[in-house]
Amino acid sequence: MEKADLTRAAIVHQALDIASHAGLEALSMGTLARAMKMSRSGIFAHFGSRLNLQLAVLQKYRCEFDKHVLQPSMHVRTGLSRLRSLFYYSVLAVRSRKFAGCLYLSCAAEYDNRPGPIRNELVDGVLRWRRAMELNVRQAIELDQLQADTDPEQLVFDMYALILALQHDTCLLEKTDSITRTKKAFERIIEQH
Amino acid sequence: MEKADLTRAAIVHQALDIASHAGLEALSMGTLARAMKMSRSGIFAHFGSRLNLQLAVLQKYRCEFDKHVLQPSMHVRTGLSRLRSLFYYSVLAVRSRKFAGCLYLSCAAEYDNRPGPIRNELVDGVLRWRRAMELNVRQAIELDQLQADTDPEQLVFDMYALILALQHDTCLLEKTDSITRTKKAFERIIEQH
Repeated sequence: MEKADLTRAAIVHQALDIASHAGLEALSMGTLARAMKMSRSGIFAHFGSRLNLQLAVLQKYRCEFDKHVLQPSMHVRTGLSRLRSLFYYSVLAVRSRKFAGCLYLSCAAEYDNRPGPIRNELVDGVLRWRRAMELNVRQAIELDQLQADTDPEQLVFDMYALILALQHDTCLLEKTDSITRTKKAFERIIEQH
Repeated sequence: MEKADLTRAAIVHQALDIASHAGLEALSMGTLARAMKMSRSGIFAHFGSRLNLQLAVLQKYRCEFDKHVLQPSMHVRTGLSRLRSLFYYSVLAVRSRKFAGCLYLSCAAEYDNRPGPIRNELVDGVLRWRRAMELNVRQAIELDQLQADTDPEQLVFDMYALILALQHDTCLLEKTDSITRTKKAFERIIEQH
């Protein structure tokens, strides 16, 4: 890795930390320059625009999300086992102190009314996550692990709702029992199907 | 109402519109002055600080939320009927085009890491909503409309999760079927209890 690449990686690392705690819109060249002890123009030289910086942060989060949620689940059998794995690794991602929750969820409201490349990248990340779960619901049906009349999109909607509520109740309401509630609700949903 | 009060009310009305679509943090005296065709100092004179302006917006939203969710439910019998009413009026609040969703939900991620009076006001608004639902779960249990072993906090957690998912899927993913999914999941949860 060349020195410029290393510096860029360090900036993105720091930027992801700021965005995780204060939101992607709170990220500015100025804030980042102060945190990195670099000049604004030094930061600018690596990205060319605030938009490119924000996109680099989301792409870095995508790598983190893959590493911590999608990839570990690939080692688990397809179908219900992998679905469970995706759910429980998502729960861990939401409980991550490093990112103060899941960036995909914390950015959702920030960008739902802001069309453009950031929103597109965010929607793409969320849809990959949802599709991975839907695929494994379908496989679980084929494997007779879930009932034949299970609606994959509905089941994933219900699961995703719990993940959203976990992030909301943990981060905003600081409820310590939200992880137990999330797991209980998930297991009941699976049992019904 | 005196002229100053009328102007203040008109500013808060406009500010709520901006905050609903762009977030409460995007609200600045400058943006608001442009939208109101007033001077920044003219806006400032009414509130004294950006924080007071943001709090006024949240208090205005609390009135709107009461008017559209809590108060209409007061006309319905306590217990399961009122619980249903609270849920379905919440669904309408989330689908509100006027506020581009529910402000309590869209502000949640914005403030979960920002301690202070805005976060306190937001948490207070959310907890009033949740408590109104919990109270009616308890009454529905007493009235034998829900099973005696129903956990009120768990049931409201499950309901709130659906409301969060409705806002997320409607606003970010633009899924037109999310309202049907929300209702279906809610009716199944109630049926189980």
